[in-house]
Amino acid sequence: MKIARFSHQGAITFGILDESDAGVAELVVLNGDPMFAGFDTTGERVPLADATLLAPVIPRSKVIGIGKNYLDHVAEMGTGSAPAEPLMFLKPNTSVIGPGDRIVRPAQSSRVDFEGELAVVIGSIAKNVRVADAASVIFGYTIANDVTARDLQKSDGQWTRAKGFDTFCPIGPVIETEFDLAAATVETRLNGVLAQSAPVTDMIHSVAEIVAYASSVFTLLPGDVILTGTPAGVAAIEAGDTVEIEIAGIGVLSNPVL
Amino acid sequence: MKIARFSHQGAITFGILDESDAGVAELVVLNGDPMFAGFDTTGERVPLADATLLAPVIPRSKVIGIGKNYLDHVAEMGTGSAPAEPLMFLKPNTSVIGPGDRIVRPAQSSRVDFEGELAVVIGSIAKNVRVADAASVIFGYTIANDVTARDLQKSDGQWTRAKGFDTFCPIGPVIETEFDLAAATVETRLNGVLAQSAPVTDMIHSVAEIVAYASSVFTLLPGDVILTGTPAGVAAIEAGDTVEIEIAGIGVLSNPVL
Repeated sequence: MKIARFSHQGAITFGILDESDAGVAELVVLNGDPMFAGFDTTGERVPLADATLLAPVIPRSKVIGIGKNYLDHVAEMGTGSAPAEPLMFLKPNTSVIGPGDRIVRPAQSSRVDFEGELAVVIGSIAKNVRVADAASVIFGYTIANDVTARDLQKSDGQWTRAKGFDTFCPIGPVIETEFDLAAATVETRLNGVLAQSAPVTDMIHSVAEIVAYASSVFTLLPGDVILTGTPAGVAAIEAGDTVEIEIAGIGVLSNPVL
Repeated sequence: MKIARFSHQGAITFGILDESDAGVAELVVLNGDPMFAGFDTTGERVPLADATLLAPVIPRSKVIGIGKNYLDHVAEMGTGSAPAEPLMFLKPNTSVIGPGDRIVRPAQSSRVDFEGELAVVIGSIAKNVRVADAASVIFGYTIANDVTARDLQKSDGQWTRAKGFDTFCPIGPVIETEFDLAAATVETRLNGVLAQSAPVTDMIHSVAEIVAYASSVFTLLPGDVILTGTPAGVAAIEAGDTVEIEIAGIGVLSNPVL
């Protein structure tokens, strides 16, 4: 199922995306947040065209990012070898925006890059999860753009500022709760031109390994989001650009750049 | 005023600490969280001795740490010079514990250090705050221990794991809303022996400068906590130790080590 969070006629609700009738997609409205309230439908349906999609989750605790998780991206960055363990950083929830929201390049940076990524949404309280059990604590998958001020990332050393500016974490458009990882590919287009394309099986540390590792450090909470790293092809974004990240089976996350 | 969050007879509430009657301190119970609900008293009073103090705030968005903010600590670490701008990192809210709670040394580290610090609690939504206006967005001050796995801090490069383990952010015992920064001193005792002692005026970047800087990157939200850096004297903690951090005017934050 594809879960959306959306606004319609002044109200913000969750819904299940129903694409069964081609061309007339609808949102089946839910009572509350399905992560906590389950899939309890109200009976109401809203045409997708009439809804404004929002970030499908607002993390109350953590947005965890993973650095250097695709070999070809490690190579293009030229900053050392791939880490033996997942290299974690945090993005604040104030950096989260939704589909269609503008990425604002801050005055402090002269080089802001997109990074298209698969994102994991945690559904359960989880600590010291085994790799074999990781799937059981995952609510679903979405798409994220780990926007990064590349110049500040280098000059600060710590990545917190470079990856933490407001608007630097677009996520969406939906959370897919039955996603097939094995066949997934991340594709990023800048102004319609393909810039990144990689199967998620190219990850150095798999989704299950990342979830297990993160849970060995932090207690994971429902709504935590883990960005699983970006493949090669990152590039700078300028005012007027549009970044589209597509993962077949989830959708397309599109954001304009200011 | 000193604001505490505490549990008593199964309920968690906020209260104002009344120490006017020496030896019989009491908590004046408040309706709701004073950060959002104001100082609305219920009429009930709870003896401090009967209450269990909790972390006085649970950040819903950010715990921001500042690295290398006292020259003598920069010197003792031997890892380069003081940064021209505040060096920010994030700790997850899952690392927050309260007064008296145990700091758990994780199996992944063989060297965990205390770091006694003054902490700022943000009270308003704030973006691009000027230094001169920083005080207006501060709810109050508390004490924090920026517990750090020193070995992992060095080996990871990024500080997220080393500073983000569960229990690595003790805060409390109270939030002082009328704190005099000019005269403040941070003192840390390990098993009763003084280890750190410094006036907060020794900070390289002042509280107002830090708040302004953080707000130029992140939107600050009520309940965000900013740890302002640690002075010289950090040292390893072992099972059975007790770390006490005292800032006169706020109190003593004491935590045992497991």
